[in-house]
Amino acid sequence: MPAIGTDALVQAAVRLQAACLERGLTVALGESCTGGLVAHAITQVAGSSRYFLGGVVSYADSAKMTLLRVPEELIDRHGAVSAEVAGAMASGVRRRFGADLAASITGIAGPDGGTADKSVGLTFIGLAHDRQVSTRRFEWGGDRSANIEASAAAAIEWLIESAEAVQA
Amino acid sequence: MPAIGTDALVQAAVRLQAACLERGLTVALGESCTGGLVAHAITQVAGSSRYFLGGVVSYADSAKMTLLRVPEELIDRHGAVSAEVAGAMASGVRRRFGADLAASITGIAGPDGGTADKSVGLTFIGLAHDRQVSTRRFEWGGDRSANIEASAAAAIEWLIESAEAVQA
Repeated sequence: MPAIGTDALVQAAVRLQAACLERGLTVALGESCTGGLVAHAITQVAGSSRYFLGGVVSYADSAKMTLLRVPEELIDRHGAVSAEVAGAMASGVRRRFGADLAASITGIAGPDGGTADKSVGLTFIGLAHDRQVSTRRFEWGGDRSANIEASAAAAIEWLIESAEAVQA
Repeated sequence: MPAIGTDALVQAAVRLQAACLERGLTVALGESCTGGLVAHAITQVAGSSRYFLGGVVSYADSAKMTLLRVPEELIDRHGAVSAEVAGAMASGVRRRFGADLAASITGIAGPDGGTADKSVGLTFIGLAHDRQVSTRRFEWGGDRSANIEASAAAAIEWLIESAEAVQA
């Protein structure tokens, strides 16, 4: 198994940290398929405790429900890998941590877990800021590591974009 | 910044997965200084969702209190980097996720955060299993990345040791 190319992620995390500290914004994360990689990249940067409150790695559906307060019926109806659940994860984790910005990631990293409807690589990212929750849909084409990395990068880039949209 | 040497961690995670699946054990994590690296290593392995329930990256003290139910007075009295808090994090996260085994990590990765009492590299790991909670103390001597990696490796090794102690 090759080592994860965290360099680019850590460089993005440096930019996120600068954007957040400049504006006094705090960040929290709800990670499913990325399994902690986004939090890991963020906390590789010294001083990250000044804006990063923490995150939940909600691998089991039960964790999504109890820790992030994602309604069970949302998971039953749309599946854990869905825009609806990504949005609920983002707003749930934002409230849990009392953060300004929160990102969530839920997807099928592979090699298992794909279905007729939802193939390996399908990923939803959620972004909660104040009362607004947005989601984005991606279809990655890589192997497990590449899919996880691509999802992590997309989440950090969206956090940077959202932070920079806030007046400094 | 060099890429994290996750290879050894992922290899340890493969052994942890085998030990847990063989015994039907589930695992949860409460990570502070390791910031999600242990969860990331575990979820790099395909099939990890069959035993890994998830984790909390409790970077802020407030997250340790609200998500892991670590009593505030424990943090006030002993500091967030202490055996007492490591133990409370492990038992808190075990209950939160309803896991068989839970590990916690709290330490000073550096370069900032060291004090006269507690120097950079000081780390406590907690392990909760049934009603028993144990803690171990480490003093790493590396830089931030090396300290984070050493803590993550120690946590995974202790989880393996604890899983293998359970009758298969």
